[in-house]
This record gives sequence, C-alpha cells and structure tokens, in this order.
Amino acid sequence: MSSSLPIGVFDSGIGGLTVLKALIRRLPGEDFLYLGDTARLPYGTKTAATVERYAQQAVYALVRRGVKAVVVACNTASAAALPALVAGNPGLPIIGVIEPGAAAAVAATRTGQIGVIATEGTVRGGAYQREIQRRLPRAQVTAVPATLFVALAEEGWTEGEVALAAARRYLEPLFSNGATAPDVLVLGCTHFPPLTGAIQAVAGSAVRIVDSAHTTAEVLADLLVDARLTSAEADGVCQFLVTDGEERFARVGPAFLGRAISAGEIERVNL
Amino acid sequence: MSSSLPIGVFDSGIGGLTVLKALIRRLPGEDFLYLGDTARLPYGTKTAATVERYAQQAVYALVRRGVKAVVVACNTASAAALPALVAGNPGLPIIGVIEPGAAAAVAATRTGQIGVIATEGTVRGGAYQREIQRRLPRAQVTAVPATLFVALAEEGWTEGEVALAAARRYLEPLFSNGATAPDVLVLGCTHFPPLTGAIQAVAGSAVRIVDSAHTTAEVLADLLVDARLTSAEADGVCQFLVTDGEERFARVGPAFLGRAISAGEIERVNL
Repeated sequence: MSSSLPIGVFDSGIGGLTVLKALIRRLPGEDFLYLGDTARLPYGTKTAATVERYAQQAVYALVRRGVKAVVVACNTASAAALPALVAGNPGLPIIGVIEPGAAAAVAATRTGQIGVIATEGTVRGGAYQREIQRRLPRAQVTAVPATLFVALAEEGWTEGEVALAAARRYLEPLFSNGATAPDVLVLGCTHFPPLTGAIQAVAGSAVRIVDSAHTTAEVLADLLVDARLTSAEADGVCQFLVTDGEERFARVGPAFLGRAISAGEIERVNL
Repeated sequence: MSSSLPIGVFDSGIGGLTVLKALIRRLPGEDFLYLGDTARLPYGTKTAATVERYAQQAVYALVRRGVKAVVVACNTASAAALPALVAGNPGLPIIGVIEPGAAAAVAATRTGQIGVIATEGTVRGGAYQREIQRRLPRAQVTAVPATLFVALAEEGWTEGEVALAAARRYLEPLFSNGATAPDVLVLGCTHFPPLTGAIQAVAGSAVRIVDSAHTTAEVLADLLVDARLTSAEADGVCQFLVTDGEERFARVGPAFLGRAISAGEIERVNL
C-alpha cells in the first residue's frame, strides 16, 4: 500500500460530504476520492442486505481505482455493511462512522441519557444503541428515525418554518419528560449536521449535539500514523465519483462540503 | 395477447398505488400486477437517461411475467421513458400518466392559467408543459418542483403543521399574484394526492386540483375495449412485486392504496 494513494470515502450520495469536510480539515495534505452512489440513494429506507450489496460494489470500485484506506461515511452503510467490507478486503484499513459517533456521545454525556436520530435503517439495525452501551453499560439510549430530515437537507430547507416544525415533531416526544430527557443527542446521519440550528432550538441549548464527522477524522488520522500511510504532500486534492446526476451533485453538494465543487472534479461511474 | 392476463402497473415505488387505486375502481374485474422499484426510488431526482434504463428493466420484467397492457404510473418515468418503452415493446399497449393528467388540466381550466407541481425530474423534462400547451396553446403553465412532498407522503405526514408549512413554502409564490394565479393545479407526482388537504388549504378552495389517476383509468378502459382485451371476470386480484423492503411496502402502501396489503400478496424480485 502506497502512502501517496488517496483515501477513499464512500457514501450513499451527498450527505457524506459533511464527513469529507471534517476529514479534509483534519488531514489537509491527503488526497481524497469520494464516491457517492447518487443513482441509488437514499440507503436509509432500504433493507440491510441490499445496502450491504451496494456497499460492496462501491468499495470494490474504490479499490480498483487505488486507495490506501476507506471511510464509510454513510451511517446506514456503516451499520449494515462494515463487518462484511472489512472481511472482504483484508489488508485495507476500512472505518465507519458509527463507532466514532458512539465514542463521541459517551465522552459527552453526564447523565447517561443519550438520544440518537438517524434513518429508519440505522435505527432498526440498532448499531448505535449497541456501540454506546458497549462503552457505557449504564447508558439509556433512545433512537428515533427522522427520515424527513434527509429530504429537508437535500432541498436546502435547513432553516425556517418547515425545518422547525419537523424538528418539533421528531424531537419534542424525546425531550418532553425532564427526568428522561437526553443530555446528548447524536446526529446519526450525515445529512443532519446542516439542520443543527433547528435541532438545537427544539432540544434546548443545554443539550450537547454530537456527530461522527470530527471523531471519525481523529480515528482516521491515528490509523494513518499507525499504518505509516500519512501523505508527505502539503495540499491534497479531491476527486468526486457519482453514479448519477453530476449537475445536481455540483449544485446541492456545496451546502454539505462547505466549498464549491467544479464540474471538472466530478466523474460519472457505473457500479 | 390474452384478455385473461393481468394489467401491468409500474412505478418507482409506492406512490403509483394511488393510480392503481383508481384503476381498480374503474376496472374491478381486471387483474393487476404492480411492480414498485423500491430499491431504487426515488426516480424524481435522477437523470432522464437513468430513469429510462430502469423503466426498460421494469417493463421487461412485467412482460416476462405476462401482461396484456402496461400503465407507467410514475410521472417521472412517464416523462423520461414512455417513447422508448413504446418503441421497445411493439404490440403491447403502454400508457403513461402525463397525457391523461394534461388532458384533465385542460378540461378543468377556465382562465388557461395552470399550475403543475411535480418532482425535479418531471419539471425539468417539461413534459406537462408541452402536453398542456399542445392541447391548449393559450395556456400559461407554471411548473414548480415540490420534492419534499414525496418524503412527507412516505413519512405519513400528510396533515398537520409540517405539511402545511411545506405547502405554503412551495405554493404561496405561485398563488400570491391574483392576476396570474392558476385556477387549476395539477398534482404531477403520484405521491401528492394524500397531501391534497394541505395543498387545497394553501391554494384556496376556488382552485381545482386535478391528478392523473382517474383520467388514466378512463384512457386504460377505452384502450382495453378498443383492443378487445377486457376481462370477463367479476372480481380481479392484485399481485405486488417490489425490488426491496416488502415489510415497508406493506406498512406504508395502504395509505396510498386505500386498503391493507397482506404479506402474501407481495413478492421480492430483482430487475
């Protein structure tokens, strides 16, 4: 494995760009090859078996291009497919976002009451609940599917009346009982960070909102050092592979990545 | 072609059940074979080329099972793929929902000001605009993408604060100028009929809301008579094919179909 290869980042589509943003900030000298399976998004409402098959195809495509490590930036794919991906690609470091997100939640909680909002598939699979309780057995974890937040983030409606009304509908039941209200809320889907303002407004300012992006970047940085795979470059570059809709990716992506994406950086691929 | 064969109904997923409901009501003696491409929904944000390819695979699967006609119940697929589907299946009657929807709009308007709400893909393709103006050249058509309505309908949030806030955000610009406000609003996506209450509340009671379902059923009924393909049965049956998530289909589908769907009626297929 060569340290000059890029790091592969795989997501169901666009939301994983919030993770890529954190990876670039932490590892500015690395090159990244981002693959968004935009033709088949969303993964959050699909069965685990289908998500696992799609994830295997995506990682295979990254491996053929040449990558020195893979970050599964999609929570749903991390929950459904990480063990199979690791087993199927011996020698290739592969990390997901669930374990780093669970670690961040455990580090942040005081009361042990932890809320998780995620897609239907992630909640149903129970991976956050398991990973949090493995680290903190006394934790009380309440996981709530918040499917509509994905569509709100993709529509760019991250502020205003609709986002607030949706946040109230999802979160008020979780926070209405003071005795069991979480003191930490995990954003268990990469689409949710742009909605942090609306979520915080409903949860209350005392609630700590954590997501996987920054912790995942720390885990990746440690892993590259341990495996002697850090890049010697000063400025890394990004390339984006998508399975459909290059124009839409360039238009919607910047709200998640925090910078413009040029047409020349995007390439269409079939999985 | 045997008149005893079922009628194939193809949709990107669940929304087409609103069309199937109208078909069953108009043609209660017919058998229906419904195929929902739930693994790859939504189609509305995909490119036309990808939607065309998926639609060809779906119709091929229906043809292999044996159907006497096909209704493309998905607006996005009708707009992107109908000519290719008709050309690729000579001798098989295939109809979409765009032409019937456009005919219904033209029949209902007095002022010629017609609004269309649909998915991004349907609006971008311009099929409603073309079909309406072909029938009524003086028509002024304003088409607005209303992507979030798909997620709202799938979440079952068809009433209440979130649906109303979203309807206001999409529709108030359309209806704010009395001189150019539509007198007819076309629901150009099969996911939208369950949201009619919220849409009507924002558009105002004077606006006529039309969808393709009933007109499509009339077109299909005429076509079966012309082709001597009407069934001689009294009570038809339905079978449902899905590409993923049988459990979710059985849970979310009834809100669109208006009746329960049993596990025994659903079969998983790969396209």
